[in-house]
Amino acid sequence: MNTFGRILRLSSFGESHGAAVGGMIDGFPAGVPIDMDLLQTDLRNRRPSQKVGSGRQESDRIEILSGVHQGKSTGTPIGFIIRNQDAHSADYQALEQMFRPSHADDTYFRKYGIRDAQGGGRASARETVVRVVGGAFAKMLLYTQDVQVNAYTLSIGNISIPDGSSISVAEAPSFASRCPHKATDLAIQKLLKETREQKDSVGGVVSCIVTGIPAGWGEPAYDKLSARLAYAMMGINAARGFEIGCGFEASRMKGSQHNDRWRSDGTTEENLCGGVRGGISTGEPLYFRVAFKPIPSIAQEQDLLGEDGKLHRMEISGRHDVCCVPRAVSVVEAMTALCVADFMLLARCSKR
Amino acid sequence: MNTFGRILRLSSFGESHGAAVGGMIDGFPAGVPIDMDLLQTDLRNRRPSQKVGSGRQESDRIEILSGVHQGKSTGTPIGFIIRNQDAHSADYQALEQMFRPSHADDTYFRKYGIRDAQGGGRASARETVVRVVGGAFAKMLLYTQDVQVNAYTLSIGNISIPDGSSISVAEAPSFASRCPHKATDLAIQKLLKETREQKDSVGGVVSCIVTGIPAGWGEPAYDKLSARLAYAMMGINAARGFEIGCGFEASRMKGSQHNDRWRSDGTTEENLCGGVRGGISTGEPLYFRVAFKPIPSIAQEQDLLGEDGKLHRMEISGRHDVCCVPRAVSVVEAMTALCVADFMLLARCSKR
Amino acid sequence: MNTFGRILRLSSFGESHGAAVGGMIDGFPAGVPIDMDLLQTDLRNRRPSQKVGSGRQESDRIEILSGVHQGKSTGTPIGFIIRNQDAHSADYQALEQMFRPSHADDTYFRKYGIRDAQGGGRASARETVVRVVGGAFAKMLLYTQDVQVNAYTLSIGNISIPDGSSISVAEAPSFASRCPHKATDLAIQKLLKETREQKDSVGGVVSCIVTGIPAGWGEPAYDKLSARLAYAMMGINAARGFEIGCGFEASRMKGSQHNDRWRSDGTTEENLCGGVRGGISTGEPLYFRVAFKPIPSIAQEQDLLGEDGKLHRMEISGRHDVCCVPRAVSVVEAMTALCVADFMLLARCSKR
Amino acid sequence: MNTFGRILRLSSFGESHGAAVGGMIDGFPAGVPIDMDLLQTDLRNRRPSQKVGSGRQESDRIEILSGVHQGKSTGTPIGFIIRNQDAHSADYQALEQMFRPSHADDTYFRKYGIRDAQGGGRASARETVVRVVGGAFAKMLLYTQDVQVNAYTLSIGNISIPDGSSISVAEAPSFASRCPHKATDLAIQKLLKETREQKDSVGGVVSCIVTGIPAGWGEPAYDKLSARLAYAMMGINAARGFEIGCGFEASRMKGSQHNDRWRSDGTTEENLCGGVRGGISTGEPLYFRVAFKPIPSIAQEQDLLGEDGKLHRMEISGRHDVCCVPRAVSVVEAMTALCVADFMLLARCSKR
Repeated sequence: MNTFGRILRLSSFGESHGAAVGGMIDGFPAGVPIDMDLLQTDLRNRRPSQKVGSGRQESDRIEILSGVHQGKSTGTPIGFIIRNQDAHSADYQALEQMFRPSHADDTYFRKYGIRDAQGGGRASARETVVRVVGGAFAKMLLYTQDVQVNAYTLSIGNISIPDGSSISVAEAPSFASRCPHKATDLAIQKLLKETREQKDSVGGVVSCIVTGIPAGWGEPAYDKLSARLAYAMMGINAARGFEIGCGFEASRMKGSQHNDRWRSDGTTEENLCGGVRGGISTGEPLYFRVAFKPIPSIAQEQDLLGEDGKLHRMEISGRHDVCCVPRAVSVVEAMTALCVADFMLLARCSKR
Repeated sequence: MNTFGRILRLSSFGESHGAAVGGMIDGFPAGVPIDMDLLQTDLRNRRPSQKVGSGRQESDRIEILSGVHQGKSTGTPIGFIIRNQDAHSADYQALEQMFRPSHADDTYFRKYGIRDAQGGGRASARETVVRVVGGAFAKMLLYTQDVQVNAYTLSIGNISIPDGSSISVAEAPSFASRCPHKATDLAIQKLLKETREQKDSVGGVVSCIVTGIPAGWGEPAYDKLSARLAYAMMGINAARGFEIGCGFEASRMKGSQHNDRWRSDGTTEENLCGGVRGGISTGEPLYFRVAFKPIPSIAQEQDLLGEDGKLHRMEISGRHDVCCVPRAVSVVEAMTALCVADFMLLARCSKR
Repeated sequence: MNTFGRILRLSSFGESHGAAVGGMIDGFPAGVPIDMDLLQTDLRNRRPSQKVGSGRQESDRIEILSGVHQGKSTGTPIGFIIRNQDAHSADYQALEQMFRPSHADDTYFRKYGIRDAQGGGRASARETVVRVVGGAFAKMLLYTQDVQVNAYTLSIGNISIPDGSSISVAEAPSFASRCPHKATDLAIQKLLKETREQKDSVGGVVSCIVTGIPAGWGEPAYDKLSARLAYAMMGINAARGFEIGCGFEASRMKGSQHNDRWRSDGTTEENLCGGVRGGISTGEPLYFRVAFKPIPSIAQEQDLLGEDGKLHRMEISGRHDVCCVPRAVSVVEAMTALCVADFMLLARCSKR
Repeated sequence: MNTFGRILRLSSFGESHGAAVGGMIDGFPAGVPIDMDLLQTDLRNRRPSQKVGSGRQESDRIEILSGVHQGKSTGTPIGFIIRNQDAHSADYQALEQMFRPSHADDTYFRKYGIRDAQGGGRASARETVVRVVGGAFAKMLLYTQDVQVNAYTLSIGNISIPDGSSISVAEAPSFASRCPHKATDLAIQKLLKETREQKDSVGGVVSCIVTGIPAGWGEPAYDKLSARLAYAMMGINAARGFEIGCGFEASRMKGSQHNDRWRSDGTTEENLCGGVRGGISTGEPLYFRVAFKPIPSIAQEQDLLGEDGKLHRMEISGRHDVCCVPRAVSVVEAMTALCVADFMLLARCSKR
């Protein structure tokens, strides 16, 4: 259940305040050039900048333990760990017998009958560093077929990139909010600053685009490319919605509006379908959006539920992002890369 | 890839105009009372009524071939088939070397290098009858723990149940549009009639609610209950979006608004989280929505792409629904039941 | 649990005296020529001849329900059923509350808490017809790469093909005992006749050889080619042992005896390793053996255990083979083909 | 493919001479007491003693990175690593472009098109330390239901425990050869010493017994308890054969000899079936044997195949066991525990 994928598989372990997080990438084909710069860049992009982040400073030094030899993958599993260094477990002592509102504290406890409360344990966003490592390797594999994955911040709160804006998605990492539209990025930074001052948090939407994907990846029924992407995205902490192509807007459209008009070369005028028809890639760019809720850890006074069955009014300490979206951009990109690379391998088996 | 689930698994085969569709339910525990009335009711509810449907009349006579003995499940796989009877394959001859707009015709061909064009083949909604069978069995299993699944039409086109309306979700099947709000149902019927007259189609949104689900079902990381539900829903034909709880609206909210306020009994005032925290059920009702695009098969003249690489202006014949949503209500319910029942079994393994 | 394989997967349902047995083959690549003669031949070879068999006469008329179009596979699941016709359920009434010795009657009951006793239910060898269908399709796929699978009877009771005999494995189906060595076949027929007269049964060993398999199929650790073959073979009813290459004999050898001597072309002088090194195929013929126990249903008077917790001395009626080995030859071949074809597809993913 | 199990799953990574080997145990229920002494004992038992081992001295210091809190499992994945310390990679330089006889060198190369030759890479028995860790955790889970797993050396070369000897299987670890029969252990030690002097190696057989397992664990068709055990055992390096109960001997028996005679309490007089009927546990002790070939790395001069396609006569250096069996005892025990514990969890889903 802590493994993602069918042929290309990422397995993940680790808690926020344990010794380390880590994992293993299995089914990774041999002979892929390993680009450690790409890996380090992706890890750096995931870390919240000081302008928008939580204050927790993890160097995220990764140790690759197997599966790579002389700069190439060997085909055997790629094991890796990242030690946890800047954990302030003391912040969590007051919470040991408390369930925070809209957190996973109580559901974990009721599932397992046991708690490892420090830092949110396995439910913490700390685990997403493992996904970013897996995603970086998946990108290396996708690059052998010129497939590119790029995610960016589309909106935070009510501030969104204006429709029709021209943006360069590949530049998202150079913006503090990961929103590659200068005016929107600045407005978002202002919103995040205000929100932090209000001891509050805020949600947002990440958009993702995959280019270079050939036609024919995906499966007809339960394992549609769109279905596996939805699964991958909704498995990210705080994700609340997924839509592909026109998404929910499609539900208000007529067929005559939504149908893409063919060009004779097999592409379409509009690509409203978002690069997937019948669950299988069309060869046109794939695009979708993921909605994230506001982080529930806010510094305002709230009622916590005690294991004693009573409400306790208190402020939650600990270092928390004011918005998960800038960080989630990296995770969306990583999970997309893992999902698409898995289909790339499966597609090798669809014809005799 | 044509199997859904981990412990409780539905495998599905069959094309729209082949001899039969069918499948097998594996991992179904022994000793569950088999309610053939429930099964027949669900099959009947899936069939589009003459007011809103395609005109294709399938009796959907199901034959259970194994796994049931003296009114109870035996623990062995439940095999079943449903023969195709009312197929008008001749309707599709003109399309044999054509790719319809926004259909899966071309992506299947590019994936497999071969076509079985009649009736849309495996991509046809005919396959969903198998899901409804699987879902009916899953419901029988869920009923042993008093878990109920109910889906209904929330909106079609721009017509939606008004916010704050009081509805009885269990009565949805008795409305032609599966929308359990009388005025909205009538308005939808009118819209569907007009849309058909315009030789057009229209999208819509299905809402689903699960009650009676205890706390602790779901997995922490990739297999969140919300992630598996998204996967299940986006694997339904024509699905374009999924959202749980506040969904996309949550992306515009502050934490102080979105956080659910605890009651001392462990429930919350608002349940804005939609019954899932950290991927695990909370014990409160689970609810989510699924967006469906308009059916691409419309009777207006359109450009089809030929295998000859040329555009061919023509009308598509064949019998098609004007909107998939009334039928999709049954499929959403079925896939939800399968997904939740799978977690019910997995939950038996989370503690020593 | 009733599905075999990872990429190429056979799912199976059905009880001995139910309406039908059947299944579905998923992950079967598109464009493979479907050879219905091969399928019928394999089904015929599985049926015990009147000389050595149980007397149950099933025509085994198979109905292919999907996944095949104009003589080729389409890439979608291949569903099929075979109706049960010649079931004598009355034979089993006396056994309804009895557990036969060395049968699965009691273990099924204790696992599921429920019984469908007729004809042995799911534990009956009737289910193996599904495997033979799956195996026939797997062979069609393997033939596209010139891989051949041949099994035969090596020994029954104490009668075995003499060491060093020259045999033609492909001719096994033309011998009543499936032993392609004339004198041994005749001796076995005599033994089976005597054993039947003694109201007894007898065990035996099936040998299998796979030729044409290229080097590089198999996985390094848990999914060794030899491990998956052992899994496939020991999943056959009545299998009690598996050995590859020198097998148990290797345990008594020295390294200097067992090491195969290289030839400069990469083949070896001896191929004592049986075509697998480190779990991966070597390119030389693969060979292994499977031991089967005597069928426990014998017509002698025995003590049966009643659900009442008492021993009941009685004779078991019903039609039973005197030896499962001639029939098991087909099943060994089928499961081998399924196992090897699965690795053929997986091998497409081992390099970038 | 480097993951073993369905509910309880061990994933494994690492090469012999890389930085570390490690893995992750997923699906391990919460609340199981973690017995670090048991873990260290099992790791120690796996290490070859100086009398019979390879001379490689690994302290096998394990670092548990997650999933354990205050002496109990938390239900989240248990990640762990063991660093490689005593690797003599220089020993392998001469072999970099050589394929040793009866080794996996060439098959890995032909599978992946790339080599990481040092220490045998992923094919080395070094990986089995990961299995022993996984097995130790599985044992802790089994102990909550009083299930015990014990393996021991039955024979090495032609020296075997005499039939009918009284042995105490739990004491096997205290014997250098892991053979709990004093005279046989001494004879084996003598044989191993002579074999080493002859620069040779030798094979052997491991026997394993599981007690306390209740009736009803296992699945009817492809996932028989015996089939999964065979898969687990044949996935161990150098395994060549598996047999359960009477095994190959059963192939020479009559039904009247092989059928176990019922006692009225549901046990049998003989338990010749080895604790499994129809793939499902009977409640009586489970027992089986695994044959191991002689280690192919012998110090005698042999022909190696060069990547240059020529034969090269040379002696192989490096430190190698003279027999893998004493070490394999631990691995058989570990893989058995993993396999049986997985069925223990699955069995929770067989009834409503």
